[in-house]
Amino acid sequence: MSKILERADVIKPHEFFVAAGPCAIESKEQYFGVSRALKVMGVGVLRSQLWKPRSSGKSFQGLGLDSLYMLARIKEETGMIITTEIVDKDHIAPTRGVVDVPWVGSRNMQNYELLKALAKDDRPVILKRGYGATIKEWIEAADYIGSERVILCERGIRSGTDSTRFTLDLNGALVAMYDKGMPVIGDPSHTTGRRDLVPALTRSIVAAGLNGIVVEVHNDPQHALCDADQQITPEIFKRVLEECRAIHQLISSGLNN
Amino acid sequence: MSKILERADVIKPHEFFVAAGPCAIESKEQYFGVSRALKVMGVGVLRSQLWKPRSSGKSFQGLGLDSLYMLARIKEETGMIITTEIVDKDHIAPTRGVVDVPWVGSRNMQNYELLKALAKDDRPVILKRGYGATIKEWIEAADYIGSERVILCERGIRSGTDSTRFTLDLNGALVAMYDKGMPVIGDPSHTTGRRDLVPALTRSIVAAGLNGIVVEVHNDPQHALCDADQQITPEIFKRVLEECRAIHQLISSGLNN
Amino acid sequence: MSKILERADVIKPHEFFVAAGPCAIESKEQYFGVSRALKVMGVGVLRSQLWKPRSSGKSFQGLGLDSLYMLARIKEETGMIITTEIVDKDHIAPTRGVVDVPWVGSRNMQNYELLKALAKDDRPVILKRGYGATIKEWIEAADYIGSERVILCERGIRSGTDSTRFTLDLNGALVAMYDKGMPVIGDPSHTTGRRDLVPALTRSIVAAGLNGIVVEVHNDPQHALCDADQQITPEIFKRVLEECRAIHQLISSGLNN
Amino acid sequence: MSKILERADVIKPHEFFVAAGPCAIESKEQYFGVSRALKVMGVGVLRSQLWKPRSSGKSFQGLGLDSLYMLARIKEETGMIITTEIVDKDHIAPTRGVVDVPWVGSRNMQNYELLKALAKDDRPVILKRGYGATIKEWIEAADYIGSERVILCERGIRSGTDSTRFTLDLNGALVAMYDKGMPVIGDPSHTTGRRDLVPALTRSIVAAGLNGIVVEVHNDPQHALCDADQQITPEIFKRVLEECRAIHQLISSGLNN
Repeated sequence: MSKILERADVIKPHEFFVAAGPCAIESKEQYFGVSRALKVMGVGVLRSQLWKPRSSGKSFQGLGLDSLYMLARIKEETGMIITTEIVDKDHIAPTRGVVDVPWVGSRNMQNYELLKALAKDDRPVILKRGYGATIKEWIEAADYIGSERVILCERGIRSGTDSTRFTLDLNGALVAMYDKGMPVIGDPSHTTGRRDLVPALTRSIVAAGLNGIVVEVHNDPQHALCDADQQITPEIFKRVLEECRAIHQLISSGLNN
Repeated sequence: MSKILERADVIKPHEFFVAAGPCAIESKEQYFGVSRALKVMGVGVLRSQLWKPRSSGKSFQGLGLDSLYMLARIKEETGMIITTEIVDKDHIAPTRGVVDVPWVGSRNMQNYELLKALAKDDRPVILKRGYGATIKEWIEAADYIGSERVILCERGIRSGTDSTRFTLDLNGALVAMYDKGMPVIGDPSHTTGRRDLVPALTRSIVAAGLNGIVVEVHNDPQHALCDADQQITPEIFKRVLEECRAIHQLISSGLNN
Repeated sequence: MSKILERADVIKPHEFFVAAGPCAIESKEQYFGVSRALKVMGVGVLRSQLWKPRSSGKSFQGLGLDSLYMLARIKEETGMIITTEIVDKDHIAPTRGVVDVPWVGSRNMQNYELLKALAKDDRPVILKRGYGATIKEWIEAADYIGSERVILCERGIRSGTDSTRFTLDLNGALVAMYDKGMPVIGDPSHTTGRRDLVPALTRSIVAAGLNGIVVEVHNDPQHALCDADQQITPEIFKRVLEECRAIHQLISSGLNN
Repeated sequence: MSKILERADVIKPHEFFVAAGPCAIESKEQYFGVSRALKVMGVGVLRSQLWKPRSSGKSFQGLGLDSLYMLARIKEETGMIITTEIVDKDHIAPTRGVVDVPWVGSRNMQNYELLKALAKDDRPVILKRGYGATIKEWIEAADYIGSERVILCERGIRSGTDSTRFTLDLNGALVAMYDKGMPVIGDPSHTTGRRDLVPALTRSIVAAGLNGIVVEVHNDPQHALCDADQQITPEIFKRVLEECRAIHQLISSGLNN
């Protein structure tokens, strides 16, 4: 594991990375509510989305830079690590000091100008896999940023046989881990578009031995401004997280020792 | 769960189905050796392949009907449930009394004449998913046989981003389970073509809550006549199986009770 | 080009192969009507489907062997070459003398028992590409039959970005032609499921230089028992065929000679 | 057809759009040489790539803004319409007055910040399809820019059965044309990575009735700094273009009039 990531307290040996939070920040009340609930259950990293890339320009686009102060506030209050999707190179500088771990979304995985701009930053970066990208293209995109600072995130690929929005590709995630020695986490929420599948897929990610999870958690999923069908409540996430911790311990300890 | 499957002692409530065995039966020595090792670790179902459909006609095609007696012998000795791939309707009748659970391979999932012939049989049938098939097509294929007798088996789909031979599609497997109420098991071996990925994927199948696993186990994988790169040894399988049993218990018991 | 195919008068140098006919034979009246219309416009090969493999067992399955006499009758009357999908090895022998060119459908491309049985026949065989098959798997399937007797038929692959039922893969068809030297024809009807796209795709197949086309033509597409949305009328086909002949001549002659 | 595109003299009724040029501008000599050869054969639009998005950061990245003057020079000399890939919103303003038609590449199709910035420009824009994008996503991306200014460009999708780099998806291109009424052109070069397939695919695009083609042409393909395997020489392009013009005329005139 890269020293940079360890020093940043993001990916630690013998632990798995847990990031959670709403699909997008919709209001102070919603964001603070979910964040505090997650803090209580020991979640270390807070998914805090200001900009929301949407297939359609008519969909909710996020609150934007004006709401950065909310991230600063909750960070101070809870001490959680803040991760936020960066969609434009102009947002790299203003988020410094608040956003600990910028992330690059699936649709920007091959936005090379953004990757090159992030190469000049020094924070750890989560790089989501393009939904049509090969492992080779994913690794090469990480190299643009500087692979020793990158945490890869598998979030589902598009296949011709999809019964859900995307297909979680654990095979590919394991190949990136095993062959490249890079940390890889999994996002069970975006692969499905169905909240009833999220607990099972979250457990499968941890059981496969990936380095962590990023899960969409919302206090009132039915009324969420985006991804209403795939977010789970803090209550459900709490139970899933306990199962995952038990699975992680079981795997890490090695049953036969 | 269908009464037929329960009665056949194949899929039981509160247990997960464990099938294992070599990719193909190569010799009496090889087959008996692996089978006995699997029996000792409590494996209930023996993968016993007589016919091996191969992309190339020049590859090893299996020992065929002449070796059916080996299956009868090991069945008598161990009491294990025997599962064998059926590639031709002419093999349905001769295997009765020995093969408890015929299975239909990925390449024959839409061989409707074979499915119609199996509809006249009364055994449980494992139906592997075609590697290019949608969930709808898979379910419709099961209906040809009679879905109350069918155990679905996810074995990997082909996608444009494959870094391995196929991609294990847990999303699709869960949709078939949740939406159709059918038993679904997973095959971690054929999805990868890489034995180092098999333990992780096997655990992910069980953690996702599927009804069982089918794993290729060979006493000497390096010298196997087929799928040499993806079979694991009985020693490695033993360790994986213990992890899986612990994960299954953990999930079934419900942590919060 | 293989001598066998030339002798069978199926694939000739300097000509392109034109096969057409309804998706399935529904009645003597329908079949004879379409066939005579096609004969008049110079179509050499008659698509005459007795068995219709369907994703769902509840869909129309074809009239079967009982209607083989209709094929014999129209063959005698028109002198057209008869091509019929064979879905079971038991149908190979009974169709001899009537069906000149058996074809293997997409779903049976890797039904190796059927391919091995066809290997013992001596007729030319059209081998449709499995909708999830690579070019390598397609060629290996042809080798099971005997590649010097096989005409490959591209009929569309499944991809994650499909806006139509399948995607016509001209790239793959050309690779099979150029690298393997095998005759390759294209089916514009099954790729789309939309009759308004059929003329454009038919022209594209001919302009790419493939060896021929197989098109679904029905006198009353709206009331067809299968593929109602993708069959075109004889009137529309006549116009497309004229365009295709002109394109073929234009390409074959070489503009710069 | 949109008035904006007609006024810009880019997409005209009864004509098909022909853009060609090298994969990237490598030197003044190379660029001017190819451009003049293309001018002579009546090519109206010059592919003039300054920035070259590459999967690997170690590959040639293009000459950049410093070479914009070359585009101005050749434009003045030949009167050709200049099209250039824009990879960053900062390049929109500086290219005004020289680049007539900015284009957005496949990897940036969902780089929404770039699309939003282009929405404030008034030039026609070529929007290449993301290699993993559905038609719906492609159209929604065009809407970000303003669909009445957009020319869609099909350049190949990634599928699990690819025998070439990508698969030219004429089905999808036709759906975009027929259902949305937008102009759609095709790029035969990027779909294949094999120059021997380019002539056949170029003809297939024109025969399908798409609105135009964009072809990579290089005076010395073997020594090109990028896409060395897929560029064709001016000599070969000349012949293909003649075939395409004849096919276009044949289709447009309507054989039966």
